[in-house]
Amino acid sequence: MKRVNNPPRTSWNELIQRPQLDLEFLDGAVKKIIEEVKANGDRAIKALTLQFDKIQIDNLLVSEKEISDARNQLSDELVNAIEVASGNIEKFHAAQRRDRQIIETTKGVTCWRKAVAIEKVGLYIPGGSAPLFSTVLMLGIPAKLAGCREVFLCTPPDQEGKINPAILFAAHSVGIRKIFKVGGAQAIAAMAFGTETISMAYKIFGPGNQFVTKAKQLVNQLGTAIDMPAGPSEVLVLSDETANASFVAADLLSQAEHGPDSQVVLITNSSQQGERVEKEIMEQLTKLPRQHVARKALENSLNIVFSDESDAIDFVNEYAPEHLIINTKNCDVLAEKIMNAGSVFLGQYTAESAGDYASGTNHTLPTSGHAKAYAGVSLDSFTKNITFQKITEDGLKTLGPVIEKMAEAEQLIAHKESIRIRLKSLE
Amino acid sequence: MKRVNNPPRTSWNELIQRPQLDLEFLDGAVKKIIEEVKANGDRAIKALTLQFDKIQIDNLLVSEKEISDARNQLSDELVNAIEVASGNIEKFHAAQRRDRQIIETTKGVTCWRKAVAIEKVGLYIPGGSAPLFSTVLMLGIPAKLAGCREVFLCTPPDQEGKINPAILFAAHSVGIRKIFKVGGAQAIAAMAFGTETISMAYKIFGPGNQFVTKAKQLVNQLGTAIDMPAGPSEVLVLSDETANASFVAADLLSQAEHGPDSQVVLITNSSQQGERVEKEIMEQLTKLPRQHVARKALENSLNIVFSDESDAIDFVNEYAPEHLIINTKNCDVLAEKIMNAGSVFLGQYTAESAGDYASGTNHTLPTSGHAKAYAGVSLDSFTKNITFQKITEDGLKTLGPVIEKMAEAEQLIAHKESIRIRLKSLE
Repeated sequence: MKRVNNPPRTSWNELIQRPQLDLEFLDGAVKKIIEEVKANGDRAIKALTLQFDKIQIDNLLVSEKEISDARNQLSDELVNAIEVASGNIEKFHAAQRRDRQIIETTKGVTCWRKAVAIEKVGLYIPGGSAPLFSTVLMLGIPAKLAGCREVFLCTPPDQEGKINPAILFAAHSVGIRKIFKVGGAQAIAAMAFGTETISMAYKIFGPGNQFVTKAKQLVNQLGTAIDMPAGPSEVLVLSDETANASFVAADLLSQAEHGPDSQVVLITNSSQQGERVEKEIMEQLTKLPRQHVARKALENSLNIVFSDESDAIDFVNEYAPEHLIINTKNCDVLAEKIMNAGSVFLGQYTAESAGDYASGTNHTLPTSGHAKAYAGVSLDSFTKNITFQKITEDGLKTLGPVIEKMAEAEQLIAHKESIRIRLKSLE
Repeated sequence: MKRVNNPPRTSWNELIQRPQLDLEFLDGAVKKIIEEVKANGDRAIKALTLQFDKIQIDNLLVSEKEISDARNQLSDELVNAIEVASGNIEKFHAAQRRDRQIIETTKGVTCWRKAVAIEKVGLYIPGGSAPLFSTVLMLGIPAKLAGCREVFLCTPPDQEGKINPAILFAAHSVGIRKIFKVGGAQAIAAMAFGTETISMAYKIFGPGNQFVTKAKQLVNQLGTAIDMPAGPSEVLVLSDETANASFVAADLLSQAEHGPDSQVVLITNSSQQGERVEKEIMEQLTKLPRQHVARKALENSLNIVFSDESDAIDFVNEYAPEHLIINTKNCDVLAEKIMNAGSVFLGQYTAESAGDYASGTNHTLPTSGHAKAYAGVSLDSFTKNITFQKITEDGLKTLGPVIEKMAEAEQLIAHKESIRIRLKSLE
C-alpha cells in the first residue's frame, strides 16, 4: 500500500484519481456488434456467441427443465441462505414505496406524482468463473416489487452451453421467467433493440466487462435507459485506534480480491494503526485462493493517516467511495457528515460483505466518484414518477392571469391564448 | 394534420416515431470545443463566445449591479406572477421530501437511506429570442429546496453582452448568486470541467440546441451527470365529444408554436370532433405571431380517431408523450390507466400552459418516448440516496452464516473471511 501522511488538500485531487476507463478504442468494435444484432437478430446473436464464447447455442431461451433442475444442484444451506438474503433485500426495498400525496398548490389547483413501474427491464449478469447470483437478487427483487411487467435476464453460457444453477435458481425465485443464454455487448444490443427471441427493454441493469460497459454507453445514447455508469469496485475504510486491525484488514482484502483494478483505501488517525492493518493484511493474504489478484489491487492502494478528523471526513467526501466502512468509536456521529458515498457500513461488526449479500441494502452502487451525483440501485430505479395536475374553474380564474403574464413575457402567445380562451368562456 | 382512422396495432410503431436527432455529425466539432475549454479555460470561453455569439465578453460573471438593476426593468405584474408561480413550484417540490425510515431487516441489522443534496449543480438556460426565465424557476427551486451548496447558471449573452432581466431576476429570486455569460457547448464544457471563473458541476441541467445536447451527451460519458436526454417538445391531447374544440385547438397550438419540430398529436373518439378541432386550429392560427412556426409543426402532426377507448389508452402508453392532456368526461378514470407520460393534465380547464409556468409541477420532462423509463425533473433529481447499515454482535451471529454461504458459492473467499474472523472473535 502507498503510505501517505496528512496529505495537504492541494494533493487530494491526485489522490482521489481512479483508473480512467479508456473505452474509446472499443467504439468501433462494439458499434459493429450492435449493428449486426440490430440487422440480423437471433442469427447475429448465435454467430457472435460462437465467435466470443466458443459455443454453438441453438435455443437462446433457458428451458423450463433447466430451471427446475437447478434447485437440485444446490445445497439446502445455499438455498436457505438465498432465501434469507432475499427476505432482507425485499424488506428494505419494499419500504421504499411512497404513498401518493396530493398537493393543492393554489385553491382549485391540485398536483400529484405517481410512481409507475418501468414496463420492460432487462438484467445483465456476467459469466466467468464466479456465478454472481447475488446480483440477480439485487436487481430482480426491486424489479418485482416495482411491478415491472416484463423482467428478463441475459447471461453468457459456459463452455457446455449451460448457465450456473445458482443464477437460474435465484432468477426463478424472484419471478424471472425468461433467461437468455447470451453475454457481452451482443446481449446489451439484443435487450436494447430486441430480436425474434429476446425481448426489448426500456432500461438495462447490471455489471459487466469493458465490452458490456461500452455497449451500455452506446445504447444509452441511442435511447435506452441504463442503471448507472460503471467502473472498478472500491472500498474506503475509515478507522481509528479502536478498530480491530484484523477486521479492517479482512475488509480491505475482500475488496482487493474482486480484481486487480479494485480500489482499496485505508484512512486511520495514526501511522501505528495503519501499520498494524498492513501487517494483518500480509498475514491473511497468504491464505486466500485469489491472493494473486488481491496483491495486484493492493499495489495501487492507499494507506493514509489523517490526524485531524474533519480533514479525514472532507477527504472521504471528495473521494466519494462506492463502499465506505466507518469503523470508529464515534461512527454514528461521522455517518451524519457523509455527503458522498454509495453505501456506508457502520461499526466493528458491519462488514462490507453484509451489504454485498444479505443486510438488505443494494450492492449495485456508483463507483469512480460517481457517488457525488448518482445513487445505487433502489426501488426508484425501476419506476418513474409521472406528475398529474387538475385545475377547476375557480383555480383557473385565480392562476390564469399569472400564466398569461409569464407566457407573454416569454413571447409564447399561443400559450397565453390557451388560458385566455378558457377564461373568456367563464366570463 | 395527418388524419388516421382507427390505425391497426401493426402501424403504431411507425406512428409513434419521433424525428431522430442525428447528432453524430456534431461529434467532432463539439469534442473540439470541449478539448479547448478543458485546456485553456476562460481564454477558450471568451474566444468561443466571440466566434459564436459575436460578442467580446470581459467579465464572464454577471455583476451584482446587473442583478440588482434587473428588478427595475420588469413590470410589477410580471414580478408578482413570478412570485406566485414560484410559490406553487416550491409547495409541490417541498412535498417531495422524504423522512428517513430505519428498517430492521433482521434482528440486529438496521438499514436506512438518506437523501443528500448533490453539492454542485450547474443550470443551463438557452438564449435566443425568448427569455426562458420559467426554466430558471423549474431548475433553481428544487436545487434550493434540496440544499445544493453551489448552484450556478450559464446563459449566453445577447449582442450587447447582456442577459435578459427576467432571467436575472428569476435566478436571484431562487438564490442563485453566480450567473455566467456563456452559452452553447462551451458552457456545458465549462460546467463539466470548471475554468478559472466558472465553477465545476457534478450534475448539469437544462435544455438547449443540438450543440448543447451533444455536449451534454459527451460530458455525461466522461463522468458528469445530466438531467435527461433531450428532444423536441411534444403534446398529445386525448379528447372526446365533451371537450371544447376551441380549448383543444388552443392547447395543440401552444405546443406547435415552440418550434417547427414540435410534436403534436390529437386523439378523438370521432372524426367529427377531429374535424371541429382542425377547423378551430385554422381560425386561431391566423392571430398568432409565431404562426409560421406553428404551421410547420402542424404539417407533421397527427389527428387520430380511436373508436375504442382502450385502444386509445394503449396507443398513448406506446407513444409515451412528454405532455398528455386528457380532456374527456371520464378523465379521472383514464388517468389511472396512464403508464407512460411525463406530465398529465386532466379536464377541460387544465391547459398545458399551467404546467409550463405555474401549477407547481416541473416542466422539464422526458421527450421522444423517454417517458417509458425516465421521469421529469423533481426534488429527487438534485439529491442522491446514500444507504447505511449497522449490524450488532447479535445481528452478525444471525446473519453471518448466510453471508459466508453465499460468498463461498460465489468463490469470494476473502468476503467469507471478513465474516468468519468477526464471528470467531465473538465465540
